[in-house]
Amino acid sequence: MTKDNSLVFVALGGAGEIGMNMYLYGYGPQSNRRWIMVDVGVTFPDMDGSPGVDLIAADPEFIEAQADKLDGIFITHAHEDHVGAIGRLWPSLKAPIYARAFTAEIARLKMQDAGEDPDKIITVDVWPAQVEAGPFKVGFMPVSHSVPETSGLVIDTPKGRVIHTGDWKADPTPQVGEPYDEALLAEISKDGVLALVCDSTNVFSPNPGRSEADLVEPITQLMKDATGMVVATTFASNVARLRTLAIAAKDANRTIVVLGRAMHRMIATARKVGLLTDFPDTLDARDAGDVPAENLFILASGSQGERRAASAQLARSGHSGLSLRAGDTFLFSSKTIPGNEVAVGYIQNQLARQGVTIIDDEGGKYHVSGHANRPDLERMHEIVKPKGLIPMHGEYRHLAEHARLAEARQIPSVVADNGAVVELTAEGPKIVEHIETGRRYIEGNQTFGALDGIVRDRLRMAMRGLVVANIVFDENGNLLGDAWIEVKGLFTDIDGVDDALQRKLEDDVTKTLEKAKRRVREDDEQVEKTVKARINTMAQRLIGKKPEIIVMINRVED
Amino acid sequence: MTKDNSLVFVALGGAGEIGMNMYLYGYGPQSNRRWIMVDVGVTFPDMDGSPGVDLIAADPEFIEAQADKLDGIFITHAHEDHVGAIGRLWPSLKAPIYARAFTAEIARLKMQDAGEDPDKIITVDVWPAQVEAGPFKVGFMPVSHSVPETSGLVIDTPKGRVIHTGDWKADPTPQVGEPYDEALLAEISKDGVLALVCDSTNVFSPNPGRSEADLVEPITQLMKDATGMVVATTFASNVARLRTLAIAAKDANRTIVVLGRAMHRMIATARKVGLLTDFPDTLDARDAGDVPAENLFILASGSQGERRAASAQLARSGHSGLSLRAGDTFLFSSKTIPGNEVAVGYIQNQLARQGVTIIDDEGGKYHVSGHANRPDLERMHEIVKPKGLIPMHGEYRHLAEHARLAEARQIPSVVADNGAVVELTAEGPKIVEHIETGRRYIEGNQTFGALDGIVRDRLRMAMRGLVVANIVFDENGNLLGDAWIEVKGLFTDIDGVDDALQRKLEDDVTKTLEKAKRRVREDDEQVEKTVKARINTMAQRLIGKKPEIIVMINRVED
Repeated sequence: MTKDNSLVFVALGGAGEIGMNMYLYGYGPQSNRRWIMVDVGVTFPDMDGSPGVDLIAADPEFIEAQADKLDGIFITHAHEDHVGAIGRLWPSLKAPIYARAFTAEIARLKMQDAGEDPDKIITVDVWPAQVEAGPFKVGFMPVSHSVPETSGLVIDTPKGRVIHTGDWKADPTPQVGEPYDEALLAEISKDGVLALVCDSTNVFSPNPGRSEADLVEPITQLMKDATGMVVATTFASNVARLRTLAIAAKDANRTIVVLGRAMHRMIATARKVGLLTDFPDTLDARDAGDVPAENLFILASGSQGERRAASAQLARSGHSGLSLRAGDTFLFSSKTIPGNEVAVGYIQNQLARQGVTIIDDEGGKYHVSGHANRPDLERMHEIVKPKGLIPMHGEYRHLAEHARLAEARQIPSVVADNGAVVELTAEGPKIVEHIETGRRYIEGNQTFGALDGIVRDRLRMAMRGLVVANIVFDENGNLLGDAWIEVKGLFTDIDGVDDALQRKLEDDVTKTLEKAKRRVREDDEQVEKTVKARINTMAQRLIGKKPEIIVMINRVED
Repeated sequence: MTKDNSLVFVALGGAGEIGMNMYLYGYGPQSNRRWIMVDVGVTFPDMDGSPGVDLIAADPEFIEAQADKLDGIFITHAHEDHVGAIGRLWPSLKAPIYARAFTAEIARLKMQDAGEDPDKIITVDVWPAQVEAGPFKVGFMPVSHSVPETSGLVIDTPKGRVIHTGDWKADPTPQVGEPYDEALLAEISKDGVLALVCDSTNVFSPNPGRSEADLVEPITQLMKDATGMVVATTFASNVARLRTLAIAAKDANRTIVVLGRAMHRMIATARKVGLLTDFPDTLDARDAGDVPAENLFILASGSQGERRAASAQLARSGHSGLSLRAGDTFLFSSKTIPGNEVAVGYIQNQLARQGVTIIDDEGGKYHVSGHANRPDLERMHEIVKPKGLIPMHGEYRHLAEHARLAEARQIPSVVADNGAVVELTAEGPKIVEHIETGRRYIEGNQTFGALDGIVRDRLRMAMRGLVVANIVFDENGNLLGDAWIEVKGLFTDIDGVDDALQRKLEDDVTKTLEKAKRRVREDDEQVEKTVKARINTMAQRLIGKKPEIIVMINRVED
């Protein structure tokens, strides 16, 4: 362990996965560093790995344990995977939270939702403004992305300047918010950059990224050509897209109706901070009944097939009195995130059933990505000329490819996934340590570790079904009545007899216990072991499956 | 109800979904038809909808109830979604099963796996051979697909000829098995075709399909250029691809090792029926340790990311003593089926971690689809000139688009999803009736209906976690001891106290029951209702979540 001051970077989440971003920068001797945190995001649960969980965040335990050394939390932009856990995790972190106006508003809503004080969020100005946080000075450099006011961070440290790009794309005409400004980037980089910590999402996309502005003409044409109602869905946070869609609809003489809480919230927030001065007027859905279909445009949340969102409801049975008819058009102005294909396909089939024309991405005609493609990344490497590059925001294969890209340009790089502590030096980045990382599950009003065994038990019950055996012994260790079996999540008919499984298990367990030696019957552990073994054997024989088993032993005393 | 003889088609599975194909053709008056069945496939369970289930088939109840009127079962090809349920469903169907040699061998293995007699499968010759089954005469017309000997069925009926394509593509050079033969199709169609029942999978693919032969050169080149070991995965049943990969490997001086039971089974079956006379010799994996990496080729099962298959094992920790190193190449000669992206991505990340070069589909360079694209479908419509077209093998949106395609050519069509009884007439197809259809879950040694509530209970336990309350009353309806609470799949620490949830629920339920009126305590239903309500209220307060609850009430009598 060295006593020298060093500058380190460590991902608690977001490196080796796409989602739940949470990064730390530390400065000082290894035993006593001051820290800042960048982003406090979530990822979403699924039935395969985390049934019943509400949200998943990176486990902040490493920094919680030294929260007094955390000098600030910086939020780069308002996407859930960067800001979604701030409300729930802040109580154990307590540091001041900094963000630009739009992001700050969204972060305040997250604090409110969690019952925390929204005034803990401090709104900061764009670069060249800087925030001092311990040994760090942090500025918000505008980049473009798919949500307004997305910022890269310029982090000045005693060891030099670091650029943390956050999520970014090279869009000179993003429609809402500041453009990506290459001249500014060059200016910020001109005195040397110690390390570039950079988005890797689209490193496998070979062509230069396209601008949000490229969508205006095709979307406008679509609105004009469509004969019936037009519905469009996209990510609610893509305010520029909402604006493009709404203005195109207005130009095509369509009245605009917005459906879905997330979209209303984003539009209201963007207006509140002065970002959406030219968003057309909208009509309440309940007043839209009289508008002819060909003069109507619906902006609906739920582009990923979320079952309760407006798009799914519209496709299923209508929403707020509005419903679709043959000849209407449904535009997916969005990309389907891997894992959501089935849910999106389900909506599309429901639309097809109603004779609705479905228009999806069609090779980028109606959607552009929010992330920098491979040539854009190369261009940034060229402009910033960092002394080292650390790929972030990617699965392992993205990080590895991004590191190769940097090294091809003689920029030293390391592939550092969650928990790798990287020292940033003038000779390049170097992994010096590994700390434990993991996932924190957020559920109801609790949070717990992914490895606590809770979700494992849920998955077992889901895969195996459940048998509960209830046994009552008297004070002499003799059975009081028969064993009682309850079954949940198992097929219990055998040879056409209802609940035959329970009856047969009850008979068998009762007989087994009656025949058992007294020293077995008097020992709860032995009883449990014996009962489980019998149930497993019998269930395998009767239904071909070993269930999850709970044994409850009552001993009645006089 | 008409007493006239009519010819009908009905899908029990496979129309309105991709998977679990099961089709019926019926002839006779509505009250007394004779039937044949085409295909008895499965679809695969998932955690979202069917956790713990082994396989899913279409519910055959409609035909089971009149199994004495089923004159034959015809299997078009050896894919799981066409043959996978034959062994498990045959006992309630009992009709003779017909298939060509390769398919018949696979079907026999399915019968054996289910403990049924493999000799029930009858091998039939290719067209112009025909099988008589009640009022039907059925011939197997060779088409091409991604498994050997795939056949369309030529079904002659008293009302005219029907062509049931099965899965098909227009491949004149499929590498293994007969080519798609347009002249034969024209010959079969020349006297008029009453109805064409046709694969719709790729109706949205705008370009003509490509041949299996197009892959030979790129794959051969890849094998030669690669410096380390090469691993390739594809669908085990794609025997032509296995052959292409193996021959290319041999040409590049590589010894071939086959990993995975499914692949061994397919290769052995193809050889047994004389289809793979030129497959190169293979080496047992256990003897491959001495072969230099650059002279080794591994053909591995598990292209869809299946956790227990050879590809996943290789990526994780090696398989049969073989493991991957930096510089080795892993080729996905396959398409990722929607829903499997995350599982495949998981393998790719593990490979990236080991420095393995990953090569995937790359715009069709190393994989071609087994289904006819839009122009191929149009060409078939043109050659067959049917009096009516019924789209099958597609989700609703595929069926609807395929019907539009036919109608654009003045071929009458209907979109008939599962359960629609379609009368086939010279004036075109007509939906005349709807029957109930559904899903049959196959699990362990049982089968049960998807709507039996079993899986619903599993999903509830997985989403909510479980609380079991065990209560013992004496003969007077007084509590004997405290209520006993067991919890599974819930976070039970409150304010840092282990199992606090159980203790608090026990206290609360005990007090509630002690205070309850005697007439409540003496009534099991009232006790259950009271206990559930208390647990829900308390759990919501303590952990913010309402669990699934089982209440077990014991009444001890003297």
